[in-house]
Amino acid sequence: MKTKVAIIGAGPSGLLLGQLLHKHGIDNIILEARSPDYVLGRIRAGVLEQGMVDLLRACGAGERMDREGHVHEGFALSFNGRKERIDLKKLSGGKTVMVYGQTEVTRDLMEAREAAGAVTVYEAANVQPHDFDGGRPYLTFTKNGEEMRLDCEYIAGCDGFHGVSRKSAPVDQLKCFERVYPFGWLGVLSRTRPVDHELIYANHERGFALCSMRNDMLSRYYVQCPLDDKVEDWSDERFWNELKARLPEDVAARLVTGPSIEKSIAPLRSFVCEPMQFGRMFLVGDAAHIVPPTGAKGLNLAASDVDMLYKVLVRRYETGDEGVLAQYSQKALRRIWKAERFSWWMTSLLHKFGDDAFTQRMQLADLDYFTSSEAGLKTIAENYVGLPYEQVE
Amino acid sequence: MKTKVAIIGAGPSGLLLGQLLHKHGIDNIILEARSPDYVLGRIRAGVLEQGMVDLLRACGAGERMDREGHVHEGFALSFNGRKERIDLKKLSGGKTVMVYGQTEVTRDLMEAREAAGAVTVYEAANVQPHDFDGGRPYLTFTKNGEEMRLDCEYIAGCDGFHGVSRKSAPVDQLKCFERVYPFGWLGVLSRTRPVDHELIYANHERGFALCSMRNDMLSRYYVQCPLDDKVEDWSDERFWNELKARLPEDVAARLVTGPSIEKSIAPLRSFVCEPMQFGRMFLVGDAAHIVPPTGAKGLNLAASDVDMLYKVLVRRYETGDEGVLAQYSQKALRRIWKAERFSWWMTSLLHKFGDDAFTQRMQLADLDYFTSSEAGLKTIAENYVGLPYEQVE
Repeated sequence: MKTKVAIIGAGPSGLLLGQLLHKHGIDNIILEARSPDYVLGRIRAGVLEQGMVDLLRACGAGERMDREGHVHEGFALSFNGRKERIDLKKLSGGKTVMVYGQTEVTRDLMEAREAAGAVTVYEAANVQPHDFDGGRPYLTFTKNGEEMRLDCEYIAGCDGFHGVSRKSAPVDQLKCFERVYPFGWLGVLSRTRPVDHELIYANHERGFALCSMRNDMLSRYYVQCPLDDKVEDWSDERFWNELKARLPEDVAARLVTGPSIEKSIAPLRSFVCEPMQFGRMFLVGDAAHIVPPTGAKGLNLAASDVDMLYKVLVRRYETGDEGVLAQYSQKALRRIWKAERFSWWMTSLLHKFGDDAFTQRMQLADLDYFTSSEAGLKTIAENYVGLPYEQVE
Repeated sequence: MKTKVAIIGAGPSGLLLGQLLHKHGIDNIILEARSPDYVLGRIRAGVLEQGMVDLLRACGAGERMDREGHVHEGFALSFNGRKERIDLKKLSGGKTVMVYGQTEVTRDLMEAREAAGAVTVYEAANVQPHDFDGGRPYLTFTKNGEEMRLDCEYIAGCDGFHGVSRKSAPVDQLKCFERVYPFGWLGVLSRTRPVDHELIYANHERGFALCSMRNDMLSRYYVQCPLDDKVEDWSDERFWNELKARLPEDVAARLVTGPSIEKSIAPLRSFVCEPMQFGRMFLVGDAAHIVPPTGAKGLNLAASDVDMLYKVLVRRYETGDEGVLAQYSQKALRRIWKAERFSWWMTSLLHKFGDDAFTQRMQLADLDYFTSSEAGLKTIAENYVGLPYEQVE
């Protein structure tokens, strides 16, 4: 097998990259370790930045999103008995976010790819990148017990935090930065009407809480919990009581509870590796960086990596100039660090970090300042809808 | 002796309060433990917010400041090989800061007070407030070995962090919040031309540095140092070398060095106590709160307390309504917490806190974001020139 760009991973970033390259006539093949159903079974957030929405439309996978997704023009921060709305649209000069589940994004991209006739090899086991430092990289993998080889010009590692791409990068060239937070998020999905039509992020002395949703009859709620808690420790009743205790009274009063249809505990981590290019292999999205979920930047950051990578690849194939590819890592990282900053700030601002009273007051002062200053509100809004994508020079 | 408002402490906040009350016909007497020369001998920063400048003018002590002070329309942040100017005037809609030493402010206020014929008792020992919970508060003190008593209607505690006012407040009503930072500032005063006409705050892997000044031929420089360092550990040569190493190359190249005429190490602390009113006694400035010096908020915060206190006192004497006084603590504290936030943020942003690489990258990402976003720049500028004063209702 042979292609121009070999993509490892058929999650949303690999599929989005494949689709954008395809639209520009750049041949690509995706190798995915799992089955399509497994990929679609992953439950993830679904707050899409304006930039990602635009990319999905640009690659022809935006139709159902525009029909079924919900445009959100704001969200709320609750703290110290107050609830302050961040008017994203007004503060960002007209930008909004789209609430549309990651599973749906993935499904739409899969269908668009199938319609385009592009090749995805599912259940490709033992994928391994080779010779990306030289001029003729290739991937090996096993499919139905058979050893296979995919020759290519470039490799895009879209295979997530635990994938083979970053692990294949030369250790002496890789620098990693990490922060593991001392708590987790207990998340519950329930077939109930969401308590509000917009998201509510709550700072509370009992810990963080978040009211989110997938659609009109599917709610997603979270509460901060100790890292060593088990899902079994949390009955539905305990969860709903804890959630209510952390919300403003009027919100708690109108919360509709119901049986959980999914319940899980996730750790929170900040992680960045540098650089994101190793010869002819590029790391994309979670393969290179992780954000804590506060602020919903994970998927969106993968999308902005994809945007930068497809733009340099298109330029490279248009002009023949390989030098342009060197912009990928540097430009993607500048935006990534800013999104890491915002995710870290939102996490620091809203969670309970032990009992230090000064730290708690600084959180409240931060919240009071940023929600009472026009400039402060704008910094929240412009980060939440997504900072501008970097341009190729 | 008898007066309406007894003020403890003849530092800038006590003098400013006395002067503003005097201008509004409210009789006041200041008791000060030290001599005028001792008070004037304290070396402190001198970056005055617009609001404080306006107050000094309003109370008739602004003439020399307007003649000899230097209006600064911006300052610089240096980090990661970059130097970014914060254009205060443009970003804040026309506001600026005034560089004019605290010693000079104190001297001007002393002279204005003397000209007004208001009473200041210097070298008043063992000042002690009494019965401020009741209707007839008074102060006792010793002057020239004689026991004295000053009857009053209100007491203003402008006697600093170590003063008697806060210590006299009922322990069970007082809540304190504190953060002690794990480093100090080594400061040097030298009769040399300042390296720049504006302040430069530097984030550097070796630690924080600050280039400041008192006037055209008097420079004030600081470097972050370990808390247990002694002044004797730092020869002038070592200081200048360390300072140069932390500045951008072009700045270091034009730094004029010379013998230090003052050298000291100061710890950095954030501290707030709540409330700031105990019956008929009010805490003002450092008596109630301390900020780390990064961002130059200490003196300015005392001035905004004075502004709020004199406004409620004027209203009380105009209307006879004592209820208005209850606004002091709540309104002053809201602004104080925001200034504490800014000072804590500037300190967190610019100093070296150990070797954690993620923390260092978050500082650089914060600096990159806030200096590349118009909204981010505005948050820095509006805090640096001073958030608006709270109004009496």
